[in-house]
Amino acid sequence: MSSSFGTLFRVSTFGESHGVGVGAVVDGCPAGISLDEADIQLQLDRRRPGQSDLTTPRDEADRVTILSGVENGQTLGTPIGLLVHNKDQRPGDYGEMSRVPRPSHADYTYQLKYGARASSGGGRSSARETIGRVAAGAIAEKILREQWGVEIVAWVDAIGTQQAGAIDAERLTRQQVDGNLVRCPDQAAAEQMTALVREVRDSKDSIGGVVCCVCRKLPVGWGEPVFDKLEAVLAHAMLSLPATKGFEIGSGFAGTRMRGSEHNDLFVAKGERLGTLTNHAGGTLGGISSGENLLFRIAFKPVATIGLPQQTCDFSGRPVELAAKGRHDPCVVPRAVPIVETMAALVLLDLALRQQARSA
Amino acid sequence: MSSSFGTLFRVSTFGESHGVGVGAVVDGCPAGISLDEADIQLQLDRRRPGQSDLTTPRDEADRVTILSGVENGQTLGTPIGLLVHNKDQRPGDYGEMSRVPRPSHADYTYQLKYGARASSGGGRSSARETIGRVAAGAIAEKILREQWGVEIVAWVDAIGTQQAGAIDAERLTRQQVDGNLVRCPDQAAAEQMTALVREVRDSKDSIGGVVCCVCRKLPVGWGEPVFDKLEAVLAHAMLSLPATKGFEIGSGFAGTRMRGSEHNDLFVAKGERLGTLTNHAGGTLGGISSGENLLFRIAFKPVATIGLPQQTCDFSGRPVELAAKGRHDPCVVPRAVPIVETMAALVLLDLALRQQARSA
Amino acid sequence: MSSSFGTLFRVSTFGESHGVGVGAVVDGCPAGISLDEADIQLQLDRRRPGQSDLTTPRDEADRVTILSGVENGQTLGTPIGLLVHNKDQRPGDYGEMSRVPRPSHADYTYQLKYGARASSGGGRSSARETIGRVAAGAIAEKILREQWGVEIVAWVDAIGTQQAGAIDAERLTRQQVDGNLVRCPDQAAAEQMTALVREVRDSKDSIGGVVCCVCRKLPVGWGEPVFDKLEAVLAHAMLSLPATKGFEIGSGFAGTRMRGSEHNDLFVAKGERLGTLTNHAGGTLGGISSGENLLFRIAFKPVATIGLPQQTCDFSGRPVELAAKGRHDPCVVPRAVPIVETMAALVLLDLALRQQARSA
Amino acid sequence: MSSSFGTLFRVSTFGESHGVGVGAVVDGCPAGISLDEADIQLQLDRRRPGQSDLTTPRDEADRVTILSGVENGQTLGTPIGLLVHNKDQRPGDYGEMSRVPRPSHADYTYQLKYGARASSGGGRSSARETIGRVAAGAIAEKILREQWGVEIVAWVDAIGTQQAGAIDAERLTRQQVDGNLVRCPDQAAAEQMTALVREVRDSKDSIGGVVCCVCRKLPVGWGEPVFDKLEAVLAHAMLSLPATKGFEIGSGFAGTRMRGSEHNDLFVAKGERLGTLTNHAGGTLGGISSGENLLFRIAFKPVATIGLPQQTCDFSGRPVELAAKGRHDPCVVPRAVPIVETMAALVLLDLALRQQARSA
Repeated sequence: MSSSFGTLFRVSTFGESHGVGVGAVVDGCPAGISLDEADIQLQLDRRRPGQSDLTTPRDEADRVTILSGVENGQTLGTPIGLLVHNKDQRPGDYGEMSRVPRPSHADYTYQLKYGARASSGGGRSSARETIGRVAAGAIAEKILREQWGVEIVAWVDAIGTQQAGAIDAERLTRQQVDGNLVRCPDQAAAEQMTALVREVRDSKDSIGGVVCCVCRKLPVGWGEPVFDKLEAVLAHAMLSLPATKGFEIGSGFAGTRMRGSEHNDLFVAKGERLGTLTNHAGGTLGGISSGENLLFRIAFKPVATIGLPQQTCDFSGRPVELAAKGRHDPCVVPRAVPIVETMAALVLLDLALRQQARSA
Repeated sequence: MSSSFGTLFRVSTFGESHGVGVGAVVDGCPAGISLDEADIQLQLDRRRPGQSDLTTPRDEADRVTILSGVENGQTLGTPIGLLVHNKDQRPGDYGEMSRVPRPSHADYTYQLKYGARASSGGGRSSARETIGRVAAGAIAEKILREQWGVEIVAWVDAIGTQQAGAIDAERLTRQQVDGNLVRCPDQAAAEQMTALVREVRDSKDSIGGVVCCVCRKLPVGWGEPVFDKLEAVLAHAMLSLPATKGFEIGSGFAGTRMRGSEHNDLFVAKGERLGTLTNHAGGTLGGISSGENLLFRIAFKPVATIGLPQQTCDFSGRPVELAAKGRHDPCVVPRAVPIVETMAALVLLDLALRQQARSA
Repeated sequence: MSSSFGTLFRVSTFGESHGVGVGAVVDGCPAGISLDEADIQLQLDRRRPGQSDLTTPRDEADRVTILSGVENGQTLGTPIGLLVHNKDQRPGDYGEMSRVPRPSHADYTYQLKYGARASSGGGRSSARETIGRVAAGAIAEKILREQWGVEIVAWVDAIGTQQAGAIDAERLTRQQVDGNLVRCPDQAAAEQMTALVREVRDSKDSIGGVVCCVCRKLPVGWGEPVFDKLEAVLAHAMLSLPATKGFEIGSGFAGTRMRGSEHNDLFVAKGERLGTLTNHAGGTLGGISSGENLLFRIAFKPVATIGLPQQTCDFSGRPVELAAKGRHDPCVVPRAVPIVETMAALVLLDLALRQQARSA
Repeated sequence: MSSSFGTLFRVSTFGESHGVGVGAVVDGCPAGISLDEADIQLQLDRRRPGQSDLTTPRDEADRVTILSGVENGQTLGTPIGLLVHNKDQRPGDYGEMSRVPRPSHADYTYQLKYGARASSGGGRSSARETIGRVAAGAIAEKILREQWGVEIVAWVDAIGTQQAGAIDAERLTRQQVDGNLVRCPDQAAAEQMTALVREVRDSKDSIGGVVCCVCRKLPVGWGEPVFDKLEAVLAHAMLSLPATKGFEIGSGFAGTRMRGSEHNDLFVAKGERLGTLTNHAGGTLGGISSGENLLFRIAFKPVATIGLPQQTCDFSGRPVELAAKGRHDPCVVPRAVPIVETMAALVLLDLALRQQARSA
């Protein structure tokens, strides 16, 4: 049951990078939501490769087809089948991999775990697997927006050592984020990040980075202690994405260096609800949304596929030099932005429905 | 279903800080494991308060009783009921909280989510809730150790700005960790941490910190892509602990600043298996254990309950000054060490059984 | 995860017949429900042995203790721990069983499945295991009654070949059911059933029977197609009870002999809703409650433990004569009545909450 | 989460009767199984309509496409996407239904539960929904056969009042079952059943029936007490099928009329294992497979769609006469045979994997 996520709004993804297609089945979507393929395509387009010279030159249109669950532009409350056909397959690029596990890829562990693996590309460990998540999450986003007014905006906060300055998370829009190729709303930093990515690309290397995300206008009450606290399920969702190495909510690791008197968020009246003067918590208290902005960060390691030669060994342990010839991104972080947003939406809507189950 | 965790080895915890008791039911424990209460008590004793002048003076014996699932010192394969009675209850200490939500506590969100909350102490959001997890996790640890030789050792890596030096995670033992009050195996750092905690305590404040954990001798193959990757489930488990704000595996956020050519872990033959020269991955590839040491870090914020006065407001929004009179830890991090270890064990054993289901 | 049941209102049971105790943890119970031990004790008292000369003479008080989740007589929305201590243990009665698997008991399969089993009594396969279910289900019943007005009444419809006449399921009360020892509201049939059970008991044999159950005043909409249809989850719940061999909803097997023109339930206006002239469906359409009475029947086989000698064999295959010396019920069906009711309540409340999650 | 079934071998179905297509995603299928579309097509062909003059004249080829999870004829251990396109759609046939809920159909309850429903045909309540189950179950069957030698054969035991004589379940083959149009291996009874179905069809009516199923060569140990007993999960699976009203295992309701001394299955040595002289239990003890044949029966009501006029009412309660003009089966029972077999396979393989998780 490793390819399903969620309790009441539940997505099951399928598809390898080089088979017929990739997709998802969304179970538990409420009925009566207006939905068509364009609603979903929006985030798929932001995710797809080939958007600029910074990403892999593979041009994949990634058009989604709704297979079921929608009639006359309205959801029926039944499972929504989503399919994106694979195109532009060049399995020849990946020949050597049948005997050499790529460093920092999943070839070795897949082979030992399953006793088999997709003979080309990354199979399920490919970034292409995230298409099903993004398609499903785009539906979740729409429901969150229409029923609760929730706004989810992610952005690139750092690439390598290039760090964005302070961002006004309260007002940030996706248009602002998409204002440059690296999706960093700090324009000065964005230019340096762009230069860095080009330099890394030209040296046949890769580079990591950090994505930040804000979710605004959440009501108080989402999150299911003690095991399915909001931040716990978020961390689960984010660390299930390829290439992620860390997660922080609110003050994160920096908060560990603070004293309680400094870190505590003091309550004040904010209209009809209580709010806090600061938001070191990052929008949850006791694992439950507090009404303040949900703020979290995800660490993405540098892409493992690089053109530089690497001294590694084959499956039998014999030393071998490996240099990727295939197409690859030097930096995955800008394309991760819509993936983070849609995964956040999957988490939030499921917890919203679980909370709604209580309200007699 | 918020108080259950795991798919095949499944723990369901119960209990408030001030009711009859706290505990857990462990479902899916294999039969024929030798088990008695002393096996479980060991980690409960490391977790309990009152161990030194650094922790809350509440002296709670926290003796566990096995209610079911064990006969003649052997597990039956049936659910194991575990109960620890509450003692030393002083509800009077918590009177003011009925009208003032404590800053950075869960009082406010519990009240709005459930429309009710335990009238004293933290109820389920109390650190006391972790007793059920520790008791259940101690069983998981024992099975992992006896059936696979897995070793799990956590330690305090930082308190406030006091950071331990490099630790030899390959050889570290729990005895070494327990060699000082703050559970930091770097003795020099430990002394500074101890002085810091005393200073913080005397100034009626609190301080955060970082716990590191290593899991050794894992076989290749644990972790269930794409949603239940090993690091994803670990992150879920750790962020479900009270006071946690971040999680890193392997290179974590530092890895985001590296290039692929530096970050990639190159394969080499290590006896009968492949291993890697470096371990930036932290022991997983594609969400599956690689045979290298599993290494992760967790950020704990400073304890929210402090003796210093705080300018906050009551449930109706009226400003009020609050100063905790009750008993509390100035720093929760040393006591978090066995909690982290046992949560890691719950994650690992469940994934081990899920992998074992494949091996015809 | 075999000892948990339910998605949102989830019960996890524990306990063997001869350990410290039996019980359950109920997760997902809404907050603010008035609840004390007497609410739960009511159904436990109807379930317990020793109520008349028709049942096992074991007198077990079976007093429940609420361990958690309730404060000042109100549920907190947190897990409710429930414990009933075991008493009156006479392990000596069961000595021979260590080498002879009792016919039509679970001794043989437990031993082979788990490689171990409780050395005395039935362990988890004992009828005593149902205590946790009944305690949890009594809470579910209370919520269903208070929030939706749902009424659940089960009764004995047949014992052996003694069959009750037509029962007015629309108006039947538990008081009427409890009006005689066999819990059959047809007084004439009840007398013949009573005589039959006594005759069977005196001949050291046992006898089976059928329990019927009606659930009234369900709203339209409970049940989750396609796999968790109301009747599917009910059948799951009922066939998970010890000694059950069959389940029917509405017309059941008799309906297979009818034609569509006879079996179809025609719609008519009933106040504000549509109802049906007949109820061959038994209260569901497409797996969803229709607003008509939910009506189902469960087959209970004769108790396997009998005093008559049986020619069977021991674990090694050697022929042996076995005659139970222990205490046992000649007919379990009257005591099954509250068990069926409370299991039905567990099913209904969980589906009610799942439906409620939809209602924005 | 209503359209998913199973814990480790998990199927998620999707698709309405009149959308793009129907299908399933199978998660948890072991790797290295040889599989192609022909393996799956076999049971789809036995399920599809238009096989004889006894069934609906709709001729739907129902060709399955494997979307993912298989490469070079071998499963990868990743999710298997399965798709069958819809054809031969005549939505015009169903016009009247938008205002009149068909008696004994799900139109009324779907509308009230979801606030919406597929405007034509039965949507998810259509028998077409079972295609995804059959496709997934065909994979499960293959694994059970190849890894454990399990044989699953279902047959028609009764249509209306026409009851088959005793069948030799030990030796029955699918070829024998498919030897006549009604799939009843008692040839004399089959002829009478055939005549009955034709008579019912000609009178524009419908008729119910009973399907029996035997599963042979199960090892001891499948089934997860206390809630996921083998017969409980089987009953769940079978009652989740459209038009089912009852389930019996072993002696079923007939067993309720027996005495323990008659019903108990006495143990004898059978080669290396213990077996029983009789099999009133139907192949389970304490909810766990015993090594004897698994035997169960399912009641199917008469098809609700009939050509005869029915006096019912529309959604607003106004009386109306309804007579189906569309295509429909007079008797669904012969086509249910492969559906029952494949659902049984889904249950058994999931429990097999859950048991395998124990075997270190």
